[in-house]
Amino acid sequence: MISHTAKITIVGLGLLGGSYAKGFFQAGYPVYGIDIDENAVEYARKMHWVKDASMDPAFCEGSDIIISALYPHTFIQWVKENQAYFKPGTVLTDVTGIKREVISEIGSFLRKDVEYIACHPMAGREYKGIRYADCSLFKKANFIIVPSKENTERAIGVAEDIANILKFRKVSILSPEEHDRVIGFVSQLTHVIAISLMNIGEDPKLVDYTGDSFRDLTRIANINEDLWPELFICNKDVLTEEIDRLIAKLKDYRDWIENEETEKMRAGMIEASERRKLFGRK
Amino acid sequence: MISHTAKITIVGLGLLGGSYAKGFFQAGYPVYGIDIDENAVEYARKMHWVKDASMDPAFCEGSDIIISALYPHTFIQWVKENQAYFKPGTVLTDVTGIKREVISEIGSFLRKDVEYIACHPMAGREYKGIRYADCSLFKKANFIIVPSKENTERAIGVAEDIANILKFRKVSILSPEEHDRVIGFVSQLTHVIAISLMNIGEDPKLVDYTGDSFRDLTRIANINEDLWPELFICNKDVLTEEIDRLIAKLKDYRDWIENEETEKMRAGMIEASERRKLFGRK
Repeated sequence: MISHTAKITIVGLGLLGGSYAKGFFQAGYPVYGIDIDENAVEYARKMHWVKDASMDPAFCEGSDIIISALYPHTFIQWVKENQAYFKPGTVLTDVTGIKREVISEIGSFLRKDVEYIACHPMAGREYKGIRYADCSLFKKANFIIVPSKENTERAIGVAEDIANILKFRKVSILSPEEHDRVIGFVSQLTHVIAISLMNIGEDPKLVDYTGDSFRDLTRIANINEDLWPELFICNKDVLTEEIDRLIAKLKDYRDWIENEETEKMRAGMIEASERRKLFGRK
Repeated sequence: MISHTAKITIVGLGLLGGSYAKGFFQAGYPVYGIDIDENAVEYARKMHWVKDASMDPAFCEGSDIIISALYPHTFIQWVKENQAYFKPGTVLTDVTGIKREVISEIGSFLRKDVEYIACHPMAGREYKGIRYADCSLFKKANFIIVPSKENTERAIGVAEDIANILKFRKVSILSPEEHDRVIGFVSQLTHVIAISLMNIGEDPKLVDYTGDSFRDLTRIANINEDLWPELFICNKDVLTEEIDRLIAKLKDYRDWIENEETEKMRAGMIEASERRKLFGRK
Protein backbone atom coordinates (compact mmCIF):
# COMPACT_ATOMS: atom_id res chain seq x y z
CA MET A 1 0.00 0.00 0.00
CA ILE A 2 1.10 3.56 -0.65
CA SER A 3 3.14 4.83 2.32
CA HIS A 4 1.54 7.48 4.48
CA THR A 5 4.71 9.51 4.09
CA ALA A 6 4.57 9.52 0.28
CA LYS A 7 4.05 12.95 -1.24
CA ILE A 8 0.94 12.79 -3.40
CA THR A 9 -0.06 15.75 -5.56
CA ILE A 10 -3.37 16.15 -7.38
CA VAL A 11 -3.26 18.43 -10.41
CA GLY A 12 -6.65 19.91 -11.24
CA LEU A 13 -9.04 20.48 -8.35
CA GLY A 14 -12.34 20.20 -10.19
CA LEU A 15 -15.18 17.84 -9.47
CA LEU A 16 -13.08 14.71 -9.81
CA GLY A 17 -9.76 16.07 -8.49
CA GLY A 18 -11.62 17.55 -5.53
CA SER A 19 -13.38 14.23 -4.87
CA TYR A 20 -10.00 12.47 -4.98
CA ALA A 21 -8.52 14.96 -2.50
CA LYS A 22 -11.50 14.51 -0.19
CA GLY A 23 -11.29 10.72 -0.47
CA PHE A 24 -7.56 10.65 0.31
CA PHE A 25 -8.12 13.03 3.21
CA GLN A 26 -10.86 10.83 4.67
CA ALA A 27 -8.63 7.78 4.30
CA GLY A 28 -5.88 9.52 6.28
CA TYR A 29 -3.70 10.44 3.31
CA PRO A 30 -3.62 14.21 3.12
CA VAL A 31 -2.43 15.28 -0.32
CA TYR A 32 -1.22 18.40 -2.10
CA GLY A 33 -3.15 20.20 -4.80
CA ILE A 34 -2.49 22.37 -7.84
CA ASP A 35 -5.05 24.34 -9.83
CA ILE A 36 -5.01 27.44 -12.03
CA ASP A 37 -8.16 28.67 -10.29
CA GLU A 38 -7.46 30.48 -7.02
CA ASN A 39 -10.97 29.73 -5.74
CA ALA A 40 -10.47 25.99 -6.14
CA VAL A 41 -7.13 26.21 -4.33
CA GLU A 42 -8.72 28.19 -1.49
CA TYR A 43 -11.67 25.84 -1.23
CA ALA A 44 -9.49 22.71 -1.02
CA ARG A 45 -7.45 24.36 1.70
CA LYS A 46 -10.48 25.55 3.64
CA MET A 47 -12.00 22.06 3.60
CA HIS A 48 -8.63 20.61 4.78
CA TRP A 49 -8.74 18.09 1.94
CA VAL A 50 -5.19 19.17 1.06
CA LYS A 51 -2.17 19.76 3.29
CA ASP A 52 -1.54 22.67 1.02
CA ALA A 53 -2.34 23.80 -2.52
CA SER A 54 -0.96 26.24 -5.04
CA MET A 55 -1.48 27.77 -8.44
CA ASP A 56 2.21 27.21 -9.24
CA PRO A 57 3.04 24.03 -11.22
CA ALA A 58 6.48 23.93 -9.55
CA PHE A 59 4.56 23.04 -6.40
CA CYS A 60 4.63 19.42 -7.62
CA GLU A 61 8.38 19.19 -6.99
CA GLY A 62 9.38 16.23 -4.87
CA SER A 63 6.11 14.33 -5.42
CA ASP A 64 6.25 10.55 -5.32
CA ILE A 65 2.86 10.30 -7.00
CA ILE A 66 1.28 12.88 -9.29
CA ILE A 67 -2.39 12.39 -10.15
CA SER A 68 -3.71 14.55 -12.94
CA ALA A 69 -7.45 15.24 -12.88
CA LEU A 70 -7.27 17.43 -15.98
CA TYR A 71 -9.04 17.01 -19.32
CA PRO A 72 -7.08 14.85 -21.82
CA HIS A 73 -5.30 17.49 -23.89
CA THR A 74 -4.78 19.78 -20.92
CA PHE A 75 -3.15 16.86 -19.12
CA ILE A 76 -0.81 16.15 -22.04
CA GLN A 77 0.11 19.84 -22.29
CA TRP A 78 0.64 20.19 -18.56
CA VAL A 79 3.05 17.24 -18.41
CA LYS A 80 4.95 18.54 -21.44
CA GLU A 81 5.43 21.94 -19.81
CA ASN A 82 6.12 20.81 -16.26
CA GLN A 83 7.85 17.43 -16.28
CA ALA A 84 11.12 19.19 -15.51
CA TYR A 85 9.80 19.56 -11.93
CA PHE A 86 9.22 15.80 -11.51
CA LYS A 87 11.72 13.84 -9.46
CA PRO A 88 13.21 10.57 -10.77
CA GLY A 89 10.96 7.61 -9.99
CA THR A 90 7.73 9.59 -9.79
CA VAL A 91 4.60 7.67 -10.73
CA LEU A 92 2.28 9.79 -12.85
CA THR A 93 -1.36 8.86 -13.32
CA ASP A 94 -4.61 10.43 -14.55
CA VAL A 95 -8.39 10.16 -14.74
CA THR A 96 -9.03 10.71 -18.43
CA GLY A 97 -11.85 8.86 -20.15
CA ILE A 98 -9.95 7.90 -23.30
CA LYS A 99 -6.65 6.10 -23.35
CA ARG A 100 -5.03 5.16 -26.67
CA GLU A 101 -4.24 8.73 -27.66
CA VAL A 102 -3.27 9.87 -24.17
CA ILE A 103 -0.92 6.92 -23.62
CA SER A 104 0.74 7.32 -26.98
CA GLU A 105 1.12 11.11 -26.66
CA ILE A 106 2.49 11.01 -23.13
CA GLY A 107 4.78 8.13 -24.10
CA SER A 108 6.23 10.15 -26.94
CA PHE A 109 7.84 12.79 -24.71
CA LEU A 110 7.75 11.65 -21.07
CA ARG A 111 11.10 11.56 -19.25
CA LYS A 112 12.47 8.02 -19.11
CA ASP A 113 13.03 8.17 -15.33
CA VAL A 114 9.30 8.75 -14.67
CA GLU A 115 6.49 6.25 -15.20
CA TYR A 116 2.96 6.99 -16.40
CA ILE A 117 0.19 4.52 -15.56
CA ALA A 118 -3.17 5.31 -17.15
CA CYS A 119 -6.31 5.08 -14.99
CA HIS A 120 -9.99 5.70 -15.61
CA PRO A 121 -12.19 6.08 -12.54
CA MET A 122 -15.71 5.64 -13.93
CA ALA A 123 -17.37 8.14 -11.67
CA GLY A 124 -18.82 11.55 -12.29
CA ARG A 125 -21.69 13.90 -11.69
CA GLU A 126 -23.70 16.27 -13.85
CA TYR A 127 -21.93 19.24 -12.27
CA LYS A 128 -18.56 20.91 -12.62
CA GLY A 129 -16.20 22.14 -9.94
CA ILE A 130 -14.74 21.26 -6.55
CA ARG A 131 -17.82 22.51 -4.70
CA TYR A 132 -19.65 19.40 -5.98
CA ALA A 133 -16.80 17.08 -4.91
CA ASP A 134 -18.20 13.88 -3.41
CA CYS A 135 -15.99 10.86 -2.75
CA SER A 136 -18.99 8.68 -1.89
CA LEU A 137 -19.45 8.45 -5.67
CA PHE A 138 -16.60 5.95 -5.79
CA LYS A 139 -18.25 3.25 -3.67
CA LYS A 140 -20.46 2.06 -6.51
CA ALA A 141 -18.11 3.01 -9.35
CA ASN A 142 -15.71 0.87 -11.35
CA PHE A 143 -12.02 1.72 -11.71
CA ILE A 144 -10.13 0.69 -14.82
CA ILE A 145 -6.33 0.49 -14.96
CA VAL A 146 -4.98 0.64 -18.50
CA PRO A 147 -1.34 -0.48 -18.60
CA SER A 148 0.76 -0.12 -21.71
CA LYS A 149 3.47 -2.63 -22.59
CA GLU A 150 6.06 -0.46 -20.81
CA ASN A 151 4.42 -0.40 -17.39
CA THR A 152 6.02 -2.05 -14.36
CA GLU A 153 4.25 -4.02 -11.63
CA ARG A 154 5.19 -1.24 -9.23
CA ALA A 155 3.24 1.41 -11.13
CA ILE A 156 0.24 -0.89 -11.62
CA GLY A 157 0.36 -1.53 -7.86
CA VAL A 158 0.24 2.22 -7.17
CA ALA A 159 -2.85 2.50 -9.39
CA GLU A 160 -4.52 -0.38 -7.53
CA ASP A 161 -3.69 1.26 -4.22
CA ILE A 162 -5.31 4.51 -5.34
CA ALA A 163 -8.50 2.63 -6.30
CA ASN A 164 -8.53 0.80 -2.97
CA ILE A 165 -7.81 3.88 -0.85
CA LEU A 166 -10.65 5.70 -2.59
CA LYS A 167 -12.92 2.64 -2.08
CA PHE A 168 -13.87 1.95 -5.68
CA ARG A 169 -16.32 -0.93 -6.14
CA LYS A 170 -14.23 -2.99 -8.53
CA VAL A 171 -10.83 -2.68 -10.20
CA SER A 172 -10.32 -4.05 -13.73
CA ILE A 173 -7.33 -4.11 -16.00
CA LEU A 174 -7.85 -3.50 -19.71
CA SER A 175 -5.53 -2.82 -22.62
CA PRO A 176 -5.79 0.68 -24.15
CA GLU A 177 -7.66 -0.80 -27.13
CA GLU A 178 -10.10 -2.76 -24.95
CA HIS A 179 -10.65 0.28 -22.76
CA ASP A 180 -11.52 2.65 -25.57
CA ARG A 181 -13.79 0.04 -27.15
CA VAL A 182 -15.77 -0.64 -24.00
CA ILE A 183 -15.95 3.03 -23.00
CA GLY A 184 -17.08 3.97 -26.48
CA PHE A 185 -20.02 1.68 -25.90
CA VAL A 186 -21.04 1.95 -22.23
CA SER A 187 -20.24 5.61 -21.67
CA GLN A 188 -19.80 7.62 -24.85
CA LEU A 189 -22.61 6.04 -26.87
CA THR A 190 -25.04 6.44 -23.95
CA HIS A 191 -24.19 10.14 -23.70
CA VAL A 192 -24.73 10.59 -27.45
CA ILE A 193 -28.16 8.96 -27.06
CA ALA A 194 -29.16 11.10 -24.09
CA ILE A 195 -28.28 14.39 -25.74
CA SER A 196 -29.86 13.30 -29.03
CA LEU A 197 -33.11 12.52 -27.21
CA MET A 198 -33.17 15.95 -25.60
CA ASN A 199 -32.27 17.61 -28.89
CA ILE A 200 -35.28 16.05 -30.63
CA GLY A 201 -37.57 16.63 -27.61
CA GLU A 202 -38.69 20.16 -28.40
CA ASP A 203 -41.98 20.22 -26.46
CA PRO A 204 -41.44 22.09 -23.15
CA LYS A 205 -44.57 20.37 -21.75
CA LEU A 206 -42.98 16.93 -22.10
CA VAL A 207 -42.22 16.88 -18.38
CA ASP A 208 -45.93 16.45 -17.60
CA TYR A 209 -46.23 13.36 -19.74
CA THR A 210 -42.94 11.79 -18.82
CA GLY A 211 -42.56 8.51 -16.99
CA ASP A 212 -39.41 7.31 -15.31
CA SER A 213 -38.05 5.85 -18.52
CA PHE A 214 -37.50 9.17 -20.26
CA ARG A 215 -36.09 10.64 -17.07
CA ASP A 216 -33.61 7.78 -16.72
CA LEU A 217 -32.48 7.90 -20.32
CA THR A 218 -31.80 11.63 -20.24
CA ARG A 219 -30.26 12.13 -16.78
CA ILE A 220 -26.80 12.31 -18.37
CA ALA A 221 -28.00 14.79 -21.01
CA ASN A 222 -26.96 17.45 -18.51
CA ILE A 223 -23.43 17.22 -19.83
CA ASN A 224 -20.15 19.13 -19.54
CA GLU A 225 -19.87 20.65 -23.01
CA ASP A 226 -16.23 21.63 -22.48
CA LEU A 227 -15.07 18.08 -21.88
CA TRP A 228 -17.21 15.72 -23.93
CA PRO A 229 -16.58 16.85 -27.50
CA GLU A 230 -12.89 16.26 -26.79
CA LEU A 231 -13.57 12.76 -25.41
CA PHE A 232 -15.75 11.90 -28.40
CA ILE A 233 -13.20 13.10 -30.94
CA CYS A 234 -10.31 11.29 -29.21
CA ASN A 235 -12.22 8.03 -29.62
CA LYS A 236 -13.84 8.76 -32.94
CA ASP A 237 -13.05 5.52 -34.77
CA VAL A 238 -14.69 3.43 -32.05
CA LEU A 239 -17.53 5.80 -31.26
CA THR A 240 -18.67 6.29 -34.86
CA GLU A 241 -18.67 2.50 -35.22
CA GLU A 242 -20.77 2.10 -32.06
CA ILE A 243 -23.23 4.73 -33.27
CA ASP A 244 -23.50 2.81 -36.56
CA ARG A 245 -24.15 -0.46 -34.70
CA LEU A 246 -26.89 1.19 -32.68
CA ILE A 247 -28.47 2.74 -35.75
CA ALA A 248 -28.49 -0.68 -37.46
CA LYS A 249 -30.28 -2.24 -34.48
CA LEU A 250 -32.77 0.64 -34.26
CA LYS A 251 -33.51 0.07 -37.94
CA ASP A 252 -34.20 -3.61 -37.21
CA TYR A 253 -36.84 -2.64 -34.67
CA ARG A 254 -38.18 0.02 -36.99
CA ASP A 255 -38.69 -2.60 -39.71
CA TRP A 256 -40.10 -5.22 -37.33
CA ILE A 257 -42.63 -2.66 -36.05
CA GLU A 258 -43.54 -1.56 -39.57
CA ASN A 259 -43.99 -5.18 -40.71
CA GLU A 260 -45.64 -6.26 -37.44
CA GLU A 261 -43.02 -8.96 -36.79
CA THR A 262 -44.04 -9.70 -33.23
CA GLU A 263 -41.87 -12.80 -32.85
CA LYS A 264 -38.66 -11.00 -33.81
CA MET A 265 -39.42 -8.23 -31.34
CA ARG A 266 -40.25 -10.75 -28.61
CA ALA A 267 -36.93 -12.53 -29.18
CA GLY A 268 -35.04 -9.23 -28.99
CA MET A 269 -36.87 -8.27 -25.79
CA ILE A 270 -36.21 -11.63 -24.15
CA GLU A 271 -32.50 -11.34 -24.99
CA ALA A 272 -32.41 -7.78 -23.66
CA SER A 273 -34.16 -8.71 -20.41
CA GLU A 274 -31.85 -11.67 -19.84
CA ARG A 275 -28.71 -9.62 -20.40
CA ARG A 276 -29.96 -6.76 -18.27
CA LYS A 277 -30.43 -9.11 -15.31
CA LEU A 278 -26.65 -9.51 -15.06
CA PHE A 279 -26.51 -5.87 -14.06
CA GLY A 280 -28.52 -6.55 -10.92
CA ARG A 281 -29.17 -3.09 -9.54
CA LYS A 282 -32.07 -1.26 -11.10
CA MET B 1 -65.68 12.53 -5.94
CA ILE B 2 -66.66 8.92 -6.54
CA SER B 3 -69.16 7.79 -3.91
CA HIS B 4 -67.97 5.27 -1.35
CA THR B 5 -71.03 3.20 -2.17
CA ALA B 6 -70.22 2.98 -5.89
CA LYS B 7 -69.46 -0.52 -7.10
CA ILE B 8 -66.02 -0.45 -8.72
CA THR B 9 -64.68 -3.52 -10.52
CA ILE B 10 -61.12 -3.98 -11.73
CA VAL B 11 -60.71 -6.42 -14.60
CA GLY B 12 -57.21 -7.90 -14.79
CA LEU B 13 -55.36 -8.29 -11.47
CA GLY B 14 -51.81 -8.09 -12.76
CA LEU B 15 -49.11 -5.65 -11.70
CA LEU B 16 -51.14 -2.57 -12.56
CA GLY B 17 -54.62 -3.90 -11.75
CA GLY B 18 -53.29 -5.18 -8.44
CA SER B 19 -51.67 -1.82 -7.69
CA TYR B 20 -54.98 -0.10 -8.47
CA ALA B 21 -56.85 -2.46 -6.13
CA LYS B 22 -54.29 -1.86 -3.38
CA GLY B 23 -54.47 1.90 -3.91
CA PHE B 24 -58.27 1.99 -3.77
CA PHE B 25 -58.21 -0.23 -0.69
CA GLN B 26 -55.75 2.07 1.08
CA ALA B 27 -57.90 5.08 0.18
CA GLY B 28 -60.94 3.42 1.77
CA TYR B 29 -62.59 2.30 -1.45
CA PRO B 30 -62.66 -1.47 -1.45
CA VAL B 31 -63.23 -2.74 -4.98
CA TYR B 32 -64.13 -5.95 -6.76
CA GLY B 33 -61.76 -7.87 -9.01
CA ILE B 34 -61.89 -10.20 -11.98
CA ASP B 35 -59.04 -12.27 -13.39
CA ILE B 36 -58.70 -15.48 -15.39
CA ASP B 37 -55.89 -16.59 -13.08
CA GLU B 38 -57.12 -18.22 -9.88
CA ASN B 39 -53.88 -17.35 -8.07
CA ALA B 40 -54.31 -13.65 -8.76
CA VAL B 41 -57.91 -13.80 -7.52
CA GLU B 42 -56.83 -15.61 -4.35
CA TYR B 43 -53.95 -13.23 -3.73
CA ALA B 44 -56.15 -10.11 -4.07
CA ARG B 45 -58.64 -11.64 -1.62
CA LYS B 46 -55.94 -12.67 0.83
CA MET B 47 -54.45 -9.17 0.85
CA HIS B 48 -57.95 -7.71 1.37
CA TRP B 49 -57.38 -5.34 -1.54
CA VAL B 50 -60.76 -6.51 -2.93
CA LYS B 51 -64.09 -7.01 -1.21
CA ASP B 52 -64.34 -10.05 -3.39
CA ALA B 53 -62.94 -11.35 -6.69
CA SER B 54 -63.87 -13.95 -9.26
CA MET B 55 -62.80 -15.66 -12.45
CA ASP B 56 -66.29 -15.18 -13.87
CA PRO B 57 -66.78 -12.13 -16.13
CA ALA B 58 -70.44 -11.96 -15.07
CA PHE B 59 -69.08 -10.88 -11.69
CA CYS B 60 -68.94 -7.33 -13.12
CA GLU B 61 -72.75 -7.12 -13.14
CA GLY B 62 -74.10 -4.06 -11.38
CA SER B 63 -70.77 -2.15 -11.48
CA ASP B 64 -70.93 1.64 -11.61
CA ILE B 65 -67.31 1.83 -12.72
CA ILE B 66 -65.37 -0.87 -14.57
CA ILE B 67 -61.62 -0.38 -14.83
CA SER B 68 -59.84 -2.66 -17.25
CA ALA B 69 -56.18 -3.32 -16.52
CA LEU B 70 -55.82 -5.68 -19.48
CA TYR B 71 -53.50 -5.43 -22.50
CA PRO B 72 -55.02 -3.43 -25.39
CA HIS B 73 -56.43 -6.21 -27.59
CA THR B 74 -57.44 -8.34 -24.62
CA PHE B 75 -59.34 -5.33 -23.29
CA ILE B 76 -61.17 -4.83 -26.59
CA GLN B 77 -62.03 -8.52 -26.78
CA TRP B 78 -63.18 -8.67 -23.18
CA VAL B 79 -65.57 -5.74 -23.59
CA LYS B 80 -66.93 -7.22 -26.82
CA GLU B 81 -67.69 -10.52 -25.10
CA ASN B 82 -68.95 -9.22 -21.79
CA GLN B 83 -70.66 -5.88 -22.28
CA ALA B 84 -74.01 -7.62 -21.97
CA TYR B 85 -73.31 -7.77 -18.21
CA PHE B 86 -72.81 -4.00 -17.91
CA LYS B 87 -75.62 -1.96 -16.43
CA PRO B 88 -76.88 1.21 -18.14
CA GLY B 89 -74.80 4.24 -17.16
CA THR B 90 -71.63 2.31 -16.32
CA VAL B 91 -68.40 4.24 -16.83
CA LEU B 92 -65.75 2.01 -18.42
CA THR B 93 -62.08 2.98 -18.32
CA ASP B 94 -58.68 1.37 -18.90
CA VAL B 95 -54.91 1.66 -18.48
CA THR B 96 -53.67 0.92 -21.97
CA GLY B 97 -50.61 2.70 -23.29
CA ILE B 98 -51.96 3.45 -26.77
CA LYS B 99 -55.19 5.21 -27.46
CA ARG B 100 -56.24 5.94 -31.06
CA GLU B 101 -56.84 2.32 -31.97
CA VAL B 102 -58.39 1.37 -28.63
CA ILE B 103 -60.80 4.32 -28.65
CA SER B 104 -61.87 3.70 -32.22
CA GLU B 105 -62.30 -0.07 -31.75
CA ILE B 106 -64.25 0.23 -28.51
CA GLY B 107 -66.33 3.04 -30.02
CA SER B 108 -67.28 0.82 -32.94
CA PHE B 109 -69.23 -1.70 -30.85
CA LEU B 110 -69.77 -0.36 -27.32
CA ARG B 111 -73.37 -0.22 -26.09
CA LYS B 112 -74.75 3.29 -26.37
CA ASP B 113 -75.95 3.35 -22.74
CA VAL B 114 -72.37 2.86 -21.42
CA GLU B 115 -69.51 5.38 -21.62
CA TYR B 116 -65.82 4.61 -22.18
CA ILE B 117 -63.24 7.16 -21.03
CA ALA B 118 -59.66 6.32 -21.98
CA CYS B 119 -56.94 6.69 -19.34
CA HIS B 120 -53.19 6.08 -19.30
CA PRO B 121 -51.54 5.89 -15.89
CA MET B 122 -47.84 6.31 -16.70
CA ALA B 123 -46.59 3.94 -14.05
CA GLY B 124 -45.05 0.51 -14.24
CA ARG B 125 -42.33 -1.78 -13.04
CA GLU B 126 -40.00 -4.26 -14.69
CA TYR B 127 -42.00 -7.16 -13.26
CA LYS B 128 -45.26 -8.86 -14.09
CA GLY B 129 -48.04 -9.96 -11.75
CA ILE B 130 -50.04 -8.91 -8.71
CA ARG B 131 -47.29 -10.02 -6.32
CA TYR B 132 -45.30 -6.98 -7.45
CA ALA B 133 -48.27 -4.61 -7.00
CA ASP B 134 -47.16 -1.33 -5.47
CA CYS B 135 -49.46 1.69 -5.35
CA SER B 136 -46.64 3.95 -4.12
CA LEU B 137 -45.54 3.99 -7.78
CA PHE B 138 -48.33 6.45 -8.51
CA LYS B 139 -47.05 9.27 -6.31
CA LYS B 140 -44.42 10.32 -8.80
CA ALA B 141 -46.25 9.18 -11.94
CA ASN B 142 -48.29 11.19 -14.42
CA PHE B 143 -51.86 10.28 -15.36
CA ILE B 144 -53.20 11.12 -18.79
CA ILE B 145 -56.91 11.27 -19.57
CA VAL B 146 -57.65 10.92 -23.27
CA PRO B 147 -61.22 11.99 -24.05
CA SER B 148 -62.78 11.44 -27.44
CA LYS B 149 -65.30 13.90 -28.87
CA GLU B 150 -68.16 11.78 -27.45
CA ASN B 151 -67.10 11.92 -23.80
CA THR B 152 -69.20 13.70 -21.17
CA GLU B 153 -67.92 15.84 -18.30
CA ARG B 154 -69.23 13.19 -15.94
CA ALA B 155 -66.99 10.46 -17.34
CA ILE B 156 -63.95 12.77 -17.46
CA GLY B 157 -64.70 13.60 -13.82
CA VAL B 158 -64.70 9.91 -12.91
CA ALA B 159 -61.28 9.54 -14.56
CA GLU B 160 -59.95 12.54 -12.61
CA ASP B 161 -61.32 11.06 -9.40
CA ILE B 162 -59.54 7.78 -10.06
CA ALA B 163 -56.24 9.64 -10.56
CA ASN B 164 -56.77 11.64 -7.38
CA ILE B 165 -57.84 8.67 -5.24
CA LEU B 166 -54.74 6.78 -6.38
CA LYS B 167 -52.59 9.90 -5.67
CA PHE B 168 -51.05 10.39 -9.10
CA ARG B 169 -48.57 13.27 -9.29
CA LYS B 170 -50.22 15.16 -12.11
CA VAL B 171 -53.28 14.74 -14.33
CA SER B 172 -53.18 15.90 -17.95
CA ILE B 173 -55.76 15.81 -20.69
CA LEU B 174 -54.61 15.01 -24.22
CA SER B 175 -56.41 14.15 -27.43
CA PRO B 176 -55.90 10.58 -28.70
CA GLU B 177 -53.56 11.90 -31.40
CA GLU B 178 -51.52 14.00 -28.96
CA HIS B 179 -51.35 11.09 -26.52
CA ASP B 180 -50.02 8.57 -29.02
CA ARG B 181 -47.50 11.12 -30.33
CA VAL B 182 -46.07 12.00 -26.94
CA ILE B 183 -46.07 8.38 -25.71
CA GLY B 184 -44.36 7.27 -28.91
CA PHE B 185 -41.55 9.62 -27.96
CA VAL B 186 -41.17 9.55 -24.17
CA SER B 187 -42.06 5.93 -23.54
CA GLN B 188 -41.96 3.74 -26.64
CA LEU B 189 -38.84 5.23 -28.23
CA THR B 190 -36.95 5.00 -24.93
CA HIS B 191 -37.84 1.31 -24.64
CA VAL B 192 -36.67 0.67 -28.20
CA ILE B 193 -33.36 2.34 -27.32
CA ALA B 194 -32.88 0.37 -24.10
CA ILE B 195 -33.48 -3.01 -25.71
CA SER B 196 -31.36 -2.11 -28.73
CA LEU B 197 -28.47 -1.19 -26.42
CA MET B 198 -28.69 -4.53 -24.63
CA ASN B 199 -29.03 -6.38 -27.94
CA ILE B 200 -25.76 -4.91 -29.23
CA GLY B 201 -24.01 -5.30 -25.84
CA GLU B 202 -22.80 -8.87 -26.22
CA ASP B 203 -19.90 -8.81 -23.75
CA PRO B 204 -21.01 -10.49 -20.48
CA LYS B 205 -18.17 -8.70 -18.66
CA LEU B 206 -19.65 -5.28 -19.47
CA VAL B 207 -21.03 -5.02 -15.95
CA ASP B 208 -17.51 -4.56 -14.58
CA TYR B 209 -16.83 -1.59 -16.80
CA THR B 210 -20.21 0.03 -16.55
CA GLY B 211 -20.86 3.41 -14.99
CA ASP B 212 -24.25 4.68 -13.93
CA SER B 213 -25.03 5.96 -17.40
CA PHE B 214 -25.30 2.54 -19.03
CA ARG B 215 -27.24 1.25 -16.05
CA ASP B 216 -29.72 4.13 -16.29
CA LEU B 217 -30.22 3.79 -20.02
CA THR B 218 -30.92 0.07 -19.84
CA ARG B 219 -33.04 -0.25 -16.69
CA ILE B 220 -36.18 -0.53 -18.83
CA ALA B 221 -34.57 -3.16 -21.08
CA ASN B 222 -36.01 -5.68 -18.62
CA ILE B 223 -39.26 -5.54 -20.53
CA ASN B 224 -42.55 -7.47 -20.71
CA GLU B 225 -42.24 -9.19 -24.09
CA ASP B 226 -45.93 -10.17 -24.12
CA LEU B 227 -47.15 -6.58 -23.93
CA TRP B 228 -44.68 -4.32 -25.70
CA PRO B 229 -44.70 -5.67 -29.28
CA GLU B 230 -48.46 -5.06 -29.23
CA LEU B 231 -48.03 -1.49 -27.96
CA PHE B 232 -45.34 -0.77 -30.58
CA ILE B 233 -47.46 -2.13 -33.44
CA CYS B 234 -50.60 -0.25 -32.32
CA ASN B 235 -48.63 3.00 -32.59
CA LYS B 236 -46.46 2.11 -35.54
CA ASP B 237 -46.94 5.23 -37.64
CA VAL B 238 -45.77 7.48 -34.80
CA LEU B 239 -43.10 5.18 -33.43
CA THR B 240 -41.37 4.50 -36.73
CA GLU B 241 -41.29 8.27 -37.30
CA GLU B 242 -39.76 8.86 -33.86
CA ILE B 243 -37.13 6.19 -34.50
CA ASP B 244 -36.32 7.92 -37.79
CA ARG B 245 -35.97 11.29 -36.03
CA LEU B 246 -33.61 9.78 -33.49
CA ILE B 247 -31.55 8.07 -36.15
CA ALA B 248 -31.22 11.39 -38.02
CA LYS B 249 -29.95 13.11 -34.87
CA LEU B 250 -27.54 10.26 -34.07
CA LYS B 251 -26.19 10.63 -37.60
CA ASP B 252 -25.61 14.36 -36.97
CA TYR B 253 -23.44 13.53 -33.97
CA ARG B 254 -21.76 10.74 -35.89
CA ASP B 255 -20.77 13.22 -38.62
CA TRP B 256 -19.76 15.96 -36.18
CA ILE B 257 -17.50 13.49 -34.35
CA GLU B 258 -16.02 12.19 -37.60
CA ASN B 259 -15.35 15.74 -38.84
CA GLU B 260 -14.28 17.02 -35.41
CA GLU B 261 -16.94 19.73 -35.38
CA THR B 262 -16.55 20.68 -31.74
CA GLU B 263 -18.72 23.78 -31.90
CA LYS B 264 -21.74 21.93 -33.29
CA MET B 265 -21.42 19.31 -30.58
CA ARG B 266 -21.06 21.98 -27.90
CA ALA B 267 -24.22 23.72 -29.10
CA GLY B 268 -26.14 20.42 -29.06
CA MET B 269 -24.90 19.65 -25.55
CA ILE B 270 -25.81 23.09 -24.24
CA GLU B 271 -29.32 22.75 -25.68
CA ALA B 272 -29.66 19.25 -24.20
CA SER B 273 -28.48 20.39 -20.76
CA GLU B 274 -30.84 23.37 -20.75
CA ARG B 275 -33.84 21.27 -21.72
CA ARG B 276 -33.00 18.53 -19.24
CA LYS B 277 -33.03 21.05 -16.39
CA LEU B 278 -36.80 21.42 -16.82
CA PHE B 279 -37.14 17.84 -15.65
CA GLY B 280 -35.68 18.70 -12.26
CA ARG B 281 -35.31 15.33 -10.57
CA LYS B 282 -32.18 13.43 -11.46
